[in-house]
Amino acid sequence: MRWTQSAIQTQNTVPGDVNVTSLALLLQGGFLDLYASGFFHYLPLGQRMLQNLITTFKAKLALLNGQEFILSPLIWDMNGLHDTGMPRFTVSDQHDRYFSLPDSHLVEFIKLATKRLRSYRDLPQVWYQIQPHFIDWAKPKSGLVQSRAYWLGEVYLFSPNESTRRELADHLKMFHLQWFQQCGIPVIQTKTGDFLLSPTGEQRVVGCANCGYYADQQIAPTVAKSYPSGDMETTAKNVHTPNKRTIGEVSAFLGIPAHRFIKTLLFMVDETPHLVLIRGDHDASEPKLREHFGDAHLRTATATEIEQILKTPVGFLGPQGRTGIPITADIALKGAVGMVTGANIDQYHTIGLTVGQDFPVDRWADVRLAQEGDGCPQCSQPVASYRAIQLVHRREIIRTSATFQDANGVDQPLQVSMSHLFLERLIAALIEVNHDDDGICFPPLAAPFAVIILPLNMADDATRNVAEDLYRQCQQRGISVLMDDRDAHPGVKFKDADRIGCPYRLVIGRRGLKNNTVEIQIRRTQAKMSIPYDQVMDQLTQLLSTDSSA
Amino acid sequence: MRWTQSAIQTQNTVPGDVNVTSLALLLQGGFLDLYASGFFHYLPLGQRMLQNLITTFKAKLALLNGQEFILSPLIWDMNGLHDTGMPRFTVSDQHDRYFSLPDSHLVEFIKLATKRLRSYRDLPQVWYQIQPHFIDWAKPKSGLVQSRAYWLGEVYLFSPNESTRRELADHLKMFHLQWFQQCGIPVIQTKTGDFLLSPTGEQRVVGCANCGYYADQQIAPTVAKSYPSGDMETTAKNVHTPNKRTIGEVSAFLGIPAHRFIKTLLFMVDETPHLVLIRGDHDASEPKLREHFGDAHLRTATATEIEQILKTPVGFLGPQGRTGIPITADIALKGAVGMVTGANIDQYHTIGLTVGQDFPVDRWADVRLAQEGDGCPQCSQPVASYRAIQLVHRREIIRTSATFQDANGVDQPLQVSMSHLFLERLIAALIEVNHDDDGICFPPLAAPFAVIILPLNMADDATRNVAEDLYRQCQQRGISVLMDDRDAHPGVKFKDADRIGCPYRLVIGRRGLKNNTVEIQIRRTQAKMSIPYDQVMDQLTQLLSTDSSA
Repeated sequence: MRWTQSAIQTQNTVPGDVNVTSLALLLQGGFLDLYASGFFHYLPLGQRMLQNLITTFKAKLALLNGQEFILSPLIWDMNGLHDTGMPRFTVSDQHDRYFSLPDSHLVEFIKLATKRLRSYRDLPQVWYQIQPHFIDWAKPKSGLVQSRAYWLGEVYLFSPNESTRRELADHLKMFHLQWFQQCGIPVIQTKTGDFLLSPTGEQRVVGCANCGYYADQQIAPTVAKSYPSGDMETTAKNVHTPNKRTIGEVSAFLGIPAHRFIKTLLFMVDETPHLVLIRGDHDASEPKLREHFGDAHLRTATATEIEQILKTPVGFLGPQGRTGIPITADIALKGAVGMVTGANIDQYHTIGLTVGQDFPVDRWADVRLAQEGDGCPQCSQPVASYRAIQLVHRREIIRTSATFQDANGVDQPLQVSMSHLFLERLIAALIEVNHDDDGICFPPLAAPFAVIILPLNMADDATRNVAEDLYRQCQQRGISVLMDDRDAHPGVKFKDADRIGCPYRLVIGRRGLKNNTVEIQIRRTQAKMSIPYDQVMDQLTQLLSTDSSA
Repeated sequence: MRWTQSAIQTQNTVPGDVNVTSLALLLQGGFLDLYASGFFHYLPLGQRMLQNLITTFKAKLALLNGQEFILSPLIWDMNGLHDTGMPRFTVSDQHDRYFSLPDSHLVEFIKLATKRLRSYRDLPQVWYQIQPHFIDWAKPKSGLVQSRAYWLGEVYLFSPNESTRRELADHLKMFHLQWFQQCGIPVIQTKTGDFLLSPTGEQRVVGCANCGYYADQQIAPTVAKSYPSGDMETTAKNVHTPNKRTIGEVSAFLGIPAHRFIKTLLFMVDETPHLVLIRGDHDASEPKLREHFGDAHLRTATATEIEQILKTPVGFLGPQGRTGIPITADIALKGAVGMVTGANIDQYHTIGLTVGQDFPVDRWADVRLAQEGDGCPQCSQPVASYRAIQLVHRREIIRTSATFQDANGVDQPLQVSMSHLFLERLIAALIEVNHDDDGICFPPLAAPFAVIILPLNMADDATRNVAEDLYRQCQQRGISVLMDDRDAHPGVKFKDADRIGCPYRLVIGRRGLKNNTVEIQIRRTQAKMSIPYDQVMDQLTQLLSTDSSA
């Protein structure tokens, strides 16, 4: 590609409200154009970058006999079947029928597999697709990490048995690890996903410095400790707590620490009310609750529903004296005595409660968010909490009712695993770890061009001839190359090359040509090598072939 | 790809309501899975077929320095800005803001060009993208020709002057012609699009057998003839036409031919009423009207609006005595005398009207649909009307307000052309002209695999060894190959190979191996050649390289 024939345009300034480095560098380099909150256009450089990632993804899946699909971009939206708890865009047609723009095609892939994979002869299968998906974030971040449209590389593994399932899943996990390492991303692989620790992350992971354990904070298992005993009221009684609403306020007013409080929460599970009890210094985890309730549709009840169903003012709920509504309690509350919760009376709390004695618990489960200071499930040392970009979302076992016939004609359960790669987040992570003050430093496998040729003076015949010759040779060798053939000042060309971030540049100046040399510059290290003209292409090919990230 | 490791499954039956050959063959061959009315999934064979077409499209655009974009899949939908007259899906987010799923990204591409192409140095540019688009057809056809989601290859040409514009547009048109010819599609190129004449087409073209003229019927120019004179009433008077509503009924009742009637139509143009007059035996063309009104938002007025605005019962409208509402008349009405139209009174018509004398005409324009029997604009012979599949929609000149600065710093208008390729229609056309009773006969450049290897007996070691060797050699030579390694009856393998339609097959049977030969079969011609084993690959490579459609 010649710059003068391309649509490449770098920008000197980026909008003032762009405060994420990766987005700022992509706008500056002319990779993206902001369109609307959470939506953007890929400009030609950005398209090449995305295309390179897609090509690598496909190549890795080909090694697993991956079968590529393109499912309908609109899906039926009936009975909350597709509910994953993510806010979705609703689509209506002229007959007022509703569709949705899916956040993944999980349900459709499982339906297809159920229909088409009937025999052990059809298994195993690795099915995938790469297409834009949608989440209607209320406040999309102004970066690539939480955009409202995003390219998803979704992979589904259908296996006849546990060992094949694990083998395929491990292969896929390893492919991701290798790829991210080639991109220079120090990825953390957990059971449920791959993360880059980063302050711009949209997620949190908990990690243990002692044993190297990491987990998605939303679903990290927690370990219940025995309750501290001590001086406390253990006889249930109501106390007046005028104008105290939050746990902090009531705790200060009563002089009882927050971990002796119970948060009584009302959830609607498939539109049926369920009470959930969480310790006062903990938070409920919606993903854990969704899992606990068998992947049901889950939402917190509205204030109106709380008052209608529980006949209690919001803010003073307690589980005492409730009948007809099932109660799930987090395991951290097991054996708790001397607890405080709402008295089901306006402006009153009940103190001195013993869990399981003063009210029943129907089900115990780990349904709270892990948090900083929790004991590590592996080594019991306190864990820390980090912001992270989630590159891959993985579910090793997906419950379905799908079956296949084994060699004896007997129905067996189809084993289903999934792995979702978020391509925009991969781009964000890639740039976060591959940039300097001047712009992006792409690894070759993501760079829009592996090489940029900079003839410093287009008016000079010798310079131009050498540049044209090297351009031709790069094309002949199949090296993706951008020729900056603009009649522009060398400073402009260097600055733009820094911004675009091609890993290698060939600098052709009059001074070098006097000694019959061309300079190879490495974007990332800023290293410069004067190479005799007739050896340049071999040297460049050598560099590209040994680049660990190529 | 090995069949036993793939997700390929052919079907013996297709749903009974599938009556389009191309769709039936794609379902039978396992290329598609029907999802919902107007929506389907591409299965792996279908994905490979689509991907091949996309690859060719990109390769052709690379020759024009095409720059690939990926624009936001959702677009703002404000003020009817994106209106093209096509019904659209409406998308709402959780803040009740509205987006739409565009039927093309025309408006966004022009906005981007207006913003980014500021100087003559930036021109010309060929910009394109390939992504799914949407039209909410009320009754989507059960085939690929009129699906509600469709892959669009949209190309925009931005040129500094007329000659460059024409040169680029001609190149692009020629690329399409070559490609369609390579696919065996006898395409008809008109100024506004490329068509395959086909009874399954969603469009109509008019064509002249005498001079070879063809045009999209919606926008084909019409030629006004002088009106036949003769015995007729030329004094305007109202006549009672009780219970006669249609032109046919009134015509029969009054004994006056339909071409002496005027259809008086009320359109809302950007929500302002306009009267449009069309001869009784003609129909209005909405695309021509939209063009006439400067690409305005156009719709026919509702019955309520007609009664409110014109104070006249629907069915008895006439232009007589109207003030304040502009009147556009089709040129076929020029100089017409003795005309009949509604009397603006219930159950009455006015006869004996002279156009332009008994009522004013504000603007004359060619705003009617061409029809069978019209005079050819080139040679005046009567044209015929044909059903056709529109593969490409082309607009050579798009009016915009975009400008660029020329070398003297003077603002000049940016010349914009567009070309939209409908990939699903290309697939439908391709299969329509490339199939027989047994299945699809793909040209190599669209086939999911160029070659299928059929070892007739997998239990035979010699057969299997030869098959494996040829499979390896195909892969080494970069030939896309499917190996039917199923332990299945030869009849099953032949039948499936017919359905999938790979252009070449290598048949390995025990009888041939005795003479050290393998059979090369050509799907399209059913030709069979026994080739000595050690010459098979050279012969195959030779066939592929000389295949005009490769």
